[in-house]
Amino acid sequence: MTATASGQAGPAAITAPLGVAVVGHSFMGKAHSNAWRNVSAFYGSPAVAQRIIVGRDPGRAAAAADRYGWAESATDWRRVLGRTDIHIVDICTPGQLHAGLAVAALEAGKHVLVEKPLANSVAEAELMTAAAERAAAGGTMSMVGFNYRRVPALAQARAMIAGGRLGELRQLRIAYLQDWLADRAAPMTWRLRRETAGSGALGDLASHAVDQVHFLTGACITGVSARLSTFVPEREGPSGPEPVTVDDAVWATLQLDSGAVVSLEASRCATGRKNALQIEAYGSRGSLRFDLERINELHFYDAEAPDALQGAARILVTEPAHPYVEAWWPPGHVLGWDHTFTSQAADFLSAIAGGRRPEPSFADGLAVQRVLAAIESSAAKDGAAVGLPVSGPPSSSSTEAAGEAR
Amino acid sequence: MTATASGQAGPAAITAPLGVAVVGHSFMGKAHSNAWRNVSAFYGSPAVAQRIIVGRDPGRAAAAADRYGWAESATDWRRVLGRTDIHIVDICTPGQLHAGLAVAALEAGKHVLVEKPLANSVAEAELMTAAAERAAAGGTMSMVGFNYRRVPALAQARAMIAGGRLGELRQLRIAYLQDWLADRAAPMTWRLRRETAGSGALGDLASHAVDQVHFLTGACITGVSARLSTFVPEREGPSGPEPVTVDDAVWATLQLDSGAVVSLEASRCATGRKNALQIEAYGSRGSLRFDLERINELHFYDAEAPDALQGAARILVTEPAHPYVEAWWPPGHVLGWDHTFTSQAADFLSAIAGGRRPEPSFADGLAVQRVLAAIESSAAKDGAAVGLPVSGPPSSSSTEAAGEAR
Amino acid sequence: MTATASGQAGPAAITAPLGVAVVGHSFMGKAHSNAWRNVSAFYGSPAVAQRIIVGRDPGRAAAAADRYGWAESATDWRRVLGRTDIHIVDICTPGQLHAGLAVAALEAGKHVLVEKPLANSVAEAELMTAAAERAAAGGTMSMVGFNYRRVPALAQARAMIAGGRLGELRQLRIAYLQDWLADRAAPMTWRLRRETAGSGALGDLASHAVDQVHFLTGACITGVSARLSTFVPEREGPSGPEPVTVDDAVWATLQLDSGAVVSLEASRCATGRKNALQIEAYGSRGSLRFDLERINELHFYDAEAPDALQGAARILVTEPAHPYVEAWWPPGHVLGWDHTFTSQAADFLSAIAGGRRPEPSFADGLAVQRVLAAIESSAAKDGAAVGLPVSGPPSSSSTEAAGEAR
Amino acid sequence: MTATASGQAGPAAITAPLGVAVVGHSFMGKAHSNAWRNVSAFYGSPAVAQRIIVGRDPGRAAAAADRYGWAESATDWRRVLGRTDIHIVDICTPGQLHAGLAVAALEAGKHVLVEKPLANSVAEAELMTAAAERAAAGGTMSMVGFNYRRVPALAQARAMIAGGRLGELRQLRIAYLQDWLADRAAPMTWRLRRETAGSGALGDLASHAVDQVHFLTGACITGVSARLSTFVPEREGPSGPEPVTVDDAVWATLQLDSGAVVSLEASRCATGRKNALQIEAYGSRGSLRFDLERINELHFYDAEAPDALQGAARILVTEPAHPYVEAWWPPGHVLGWDHTFTSQAADFLSAIAGGRRPEPSFADGLAVQRVLAAIESSAAKDGAAVGLPVSGPPSSSSTEAAGEAR
Repeated sequence: MTATASGQAGPAAITAPLGVAVVGHSFMGKAHSNAWRNVSAFYGSPAVAQRIIVGRDPGRAAAAADRYGWAESATDWRRVLGRTDIHIVDICTPGQLHAGLAVAALEAGKHVLVEKPLANSVAEAELMTAAAERAAAGGTMSMVGFNYRRVPALAQARAMIAGGRLGELRQLRIAYLQDWLADRAAPMTWRLRRETAGSGALGDLASHAVDQVHFLTGACITGVSARLSTFVPEREGPSGPEPVTVDDAVWATLQLDSGAVVSLEASRCATGRKNALQIEAYGSRGSLRFDLERINELHFYDAEAPDALQGAARILVTEPAHPYVEAWWPPGHVLGWDHTFTSQAADFLSAIAGGRRPEPSFADGLAVQRVLAAIESSAAKDGAAVGLPVSGPPSSSSTEAAGEAR
Repeated sequence: MTATASGQAGPAAITAPLGVAVVGHSFMGKAHSNAWRNVSAFYGSPAVAQRIIVGRDPGRAAAAADRYGWAESATDWRRVLGRTDIHIVDICTPGQLHAGLAVAALEAGKHVLVEKPLANSVAEAELMTAAAERAAAGGTMSMVGFNYRRVPALAQARAMIAGGRLGELRQLRIAYLQDWLADRAAPMTWRLRRETAGSGALGDLASHAVDQVHFLTGACITGVSARLSTFVPEREGPSGPEPVTVDDAVWATLQLDSGAVVSLEASRCATGRKNALQIEAYGSRGSLRFDLERINELHFYDAEAPDALQGAARILVTEPAHPYVEAWWPPGHVLGWDHTFTSQAADFLSAIAGGRRPEPSFADGLAVQRVLAAIESSAAKDGAAVGLPVSGPPSSSSTEAAGEAR
Repeated sequence: MTATASGQAGPAAITAPLGVAVVGHSFMGKAHSNAWRNVSAFYGSPAVAQRIIVGRDPGRAAAAADRYGWAESATDWRRVLGRTDIHIVDICTPGQLHAGLAVAALEAGKHVLVEKPLANSVAEAELMTAAAERAAAGGTMSMVGFNYRRVPALAQARAMIAGGRLGELRQLRIAYLQDWLADRAAPMTWRLRRETAGSGALGDLASHAVDQVHFLTGACITGVSARLSTFVPEREGPSGPEPVTVDDAVWATLQLDSGAVVSLEASRCATGRKNALQIEAYGSRGSLRFDLERINELHFYDAEAPDALQGAARILVTEPAHPYVEAWWPPGHVLGWDHTFTSQAADFLSAIAGGRRPEPSFADGLAVQRVLAAIESSAAKDGAAVGLPVSGPPSSSSTEAAGEAR
Repeated sequence: MTATASGQAGPAAITAPLGVAVVGHSFMGKAHSNAWRNVSAFYGSPAVAQRIIVGRDPGRAAAAADRYGWAESATDWRRVLGRTDIHIVDICTPGQLHAGLAVAALEAGKHVLVEKPLANSVAEAELMTAAAERAAAGGTMSMVGFNYRRVPALAQARAMIAGGRLGELRQLRIAYLQDWLADRAAPMTWRLRRETAGSGALGDLASHAVDQVHFLTGACITGVSARLSTFVPEREGPSGPEPVTVDDAVWATLQLDSGAVVSLEASRCATGRKNALQIEAYGSRGSLRFDLERINELHFYDAEAPDALQGAARILVTEPAHPYVEAWWPPGHVLGWDHTFTSQAADFLSAIAGGRRPEPSFADGLAVQRVLAAIESSAAKDGAAVGLPVSGPPSSSSTEAAGEAR
């Protein structure tokens, strides 16, 4: 660690490979472990070393280390922060632990990746963003894991919108639909309690949708009108029926500073939809359509094609010309959901190596959090519009040169 | 005509075939003419005679009569109402003429079919509904032309929902997307002026969507939160740039008395969508999906199928077991958009012959109008929810036995 | 009738409207009646009069006349040929009657439309083609009813191929799949007996496929390798089990004189396919895809689009820029199966009025028949290739100017 | 190694983890390396150690080792066979090296996995199969890498067919379409020379299709009728234009001993198709449809569903109830192309650990080779049918109990 002007510990000096610690070993821990295990094979240097996985239960943590390729396991993340062979801390815990862990790790000079959503509240997210700003001044980087930014089709979509292919963007339709709560008999879990999960489909699913609005359009959300519903108000818990205190579904219209309007719907009761993040973007010159269940496809309608030939083209986003694809396989050899995490890790490593601030930043995560809060606030007021400050474009619209300012 | 208790003229005595007059000969006049020309060939009796077509311009009316199979043409609809060989008046004029024409025709003892939307305002619709009630007491029938109720796939969907195939219905997603106004250079027309068209995508497209909510669910809309936008505020008119005074797009969430929530979006700027009335219905036991651009298909997800076999089945709605299909062609020989009007005419004739009140009634048209008004009202209040009275189920949920009460 | 150089009766002098007689009143009689009833409304002049429908059973013929809009009915087609108010004879009978009827009608100076396939044998088709040639010399026109040439998407496909959009055409994949014989319990009918039906899926379905090869490519089929199968060799007839003497399915590869190769498959046992005429055409510059069950769509892949944007565009073939569409409805208002017959009638009338020879001609029908015969011959030789003479391009590749040569 | 009755070296004694050597480090070497790197993380024990990667060029081999996670690299595979810490040899070289390498490795007591197709000729495949039989007697296992057997949707399809869900299977339609040779300017490579590649689309693509016929149906192919074409007979090589001596496309019909017929088409000139292995299976009770470009989906039509509800269900094959899925992610979190190799490695390891003979065996690979040879032979005889001996069902139809016979 090196002393910096800000008085904080700077990033650990990089001796290749970068040492990684992951905190958490369930669903997200498994997905992130997979990313660290494979990132070098596909994206080359900087190489990483899977140093340690952290979990509360020593036996399960050891088993996870063994299975997922980590050299060691541990139960106390604080001790991990003291190790000089750890350069990156990857936080895959439940949301209520994000803030404490992330701030401590940044202050210890570790680069930090945090699973989405950034936090359970705006206040926590603000704290984390402030810590990230201070750390960045010393060269310590941070990122929030909105992994769908690394879906090649969505990165392609963003490039097309930025390049003007859609002309003036007017309407976005975004739905994120799953169905694992459609069955009334699905049991109570921590995800259905407000105190542990913060919210329901809102934080879990709509957060991705809101981040995509920022990512795809580069615009700011200036106003929100929303509704929340809980279709199944009570579910069977470990000790009998228990009230569900989060939303099953959310609806919102979002006003963008560009004049465009977004309709957003998220639900975990949409029978037959398994992981359907569906995005449609309509502009004056063309439109785009995407469904996460068909992750390799992007549909593009070019309104400037000859009249008789206009139609939505199903682009199989597996060509070398498409973002991220060249690292993987030849055309037509499709990618899956987990590849997005590997590409995310690669982007994070590349930013660290290049001294650039990675995206999406904690500030981007905070921007999402503010929209989620506005949605809850509007829903509480029966749909009446709630305004949001125009805070300058989120970092997703910044240029790569941003990093050079350091 | 026979005197009735209500003092009004009763329906003209039926001497087969029923004589029809249509008022209007542009887009809708052509579509309705097609229906009257073909209804007997597919649905049998009662036979109809295409007596007369009415239009303002004598030359164009005569040409339309010649082309579309009408025996005569006329320019004054009032004189038509006096003819005893006319039993049905079919109104295909612009909306502002609906009320005057329909009330006069009903009072003259003619059965009346009115193109949707029923009227340009709630007040007009109320007037018409009252007239329809009086006429019905004397056996004179009326109907509003929400032709999509006769799409076999949607009639099948309604039957499945009513039969419990979806279980408890929770979410509907309805979008009606077209793109003929996406091009900024599309010229000013009467459809873009509030004084002539009443509203934009709202009355033109969302009216169909709202009627489908009533039709498919049999439930009442009790509250509305909405937004309207006009993306292109000025267009080139015959004498230079002119302000557009109607909406280009509308978004709403509708609360149903059943507890279900509907998201609704309609736009005439959705580049690449030509006539996409898209409906998704999610229930506890299954879900349905429909797109008017693929009018012969209905997708049904059965959540009670064996786990490994669950998937949305693409039902080609061309089997004899499906509504309306038996009148047409063998399986796989698909129908088009215009067939819905022929089936609509058949339903109207069948109700008249059977002494039943046809659906959707003027009261159903009025129910739609009230929702459209609530949408405008909520949009004017920046999305704040606007309530609607629970007025008893619209006729669409009534049983066929309703007619027998007479 | 006027005397002509060939000594045959010339076409009846046209006094508007043209009088039409249809022979046959079951499935095809209903479809053709629909076409004659509507053709003037959509395509304008020349107007037609539905004079008479002919059937063996007087009661059923009279009922069909009443229902389908014909002025009269008759049981003896020979007497119809003598009437001077009949200008067009439309033959919708089973195949074994085509030749006798068509030749007699042509010799009586009537324009003749014959349902596909032209005949049950090459010999009959040759006879008919010779008669058609003689009649044409005197201005009497003839056409065979391959109605799918009037599917807007397929006419659009043909224009694109002819215009070079696909570059050098290399492979066609054509399947025509139905499933009404998949159930072993489906009963014996005349369609499953060789003496009445000629063949099975071959004549019924593959004939359309072969005509599309001619229509879409303008090339000649020079060689055939094929196989036939009957999966259910016996079915329950009116008096017990009976052998099925036609094919349930056919497979063939066709060599074109252009160097392209066509794979063809037709079946009436393809469970789940209702009327799936599926066509794929692959060329050096692009490809096309079509499915009759989605009759309004054509998928076009443009290999010359920018790399990252290449994808098969789903063209909704409902624009004024597309063939036939302008006669019907606005964009997105889809057509069905029966509209192809109306457009076919319009093309026939237009050719008669313009003194052009309509397409597909009897010679085109004969060309199809020869390919079907070669398929049977190859199948009998266990797949060994059977050659076909290059007979010059079928008329489908001729220019419209052909008519002017008269 | 232990001596066995057959006098061959038996399998190396297993001391966990199993040591793996891979030969080859280009496309397939990368894909197989990925499998070995990840198999333990998803499928658990037996664990494997990535010992060594072998390649001709020492520098490139070392780089591959570094990148893909191998402990060492080497240039001489013969020396690798002598190492006692290597238990598995995975052959990813061009086809002409398969036989020599595989036989030597088996004789050295190594378990062997060979990329498909098994060999470049029937003679080589026979040699390899004999060696595999001898080795198996001593407990040394072998497998050929038809990785698409591990696509969850195809494994699910096989289970459904075996379980009778399709009833009597009648028709299969299989196409494997790519387009990387559609452009006439695509350069000459070793894949387009007969001496190096054996054949073109036939060995490269049709081999997968033929293996799927065996895998899905468990039936034997008893006869073949086929055609081959080379659309672009000359391409630009390193020293000027060179003749292409392999096929661009192949068409065949295959007769199964069950009575079913398969149509097969493979092409590398099918513009717009990137990796489209498309399979349709039609039976008396239902049908299935699959496209490798949508690797997570299987479409199932159940002909025994109620009439009005029949339709092809799009099954998203990502449920725990589906084959292989449980090892990966929750429902809707889709897999990609490379996951099939990881599952293939898992199956291989599980068979080794359980003392069962893995599938597809070299005998299965030989069976495919014989069909490919018959296709070439039929094509050389202009499509005349070529018979194949019924050799008993390939191992793919054997039960798991097969392994117990040891």
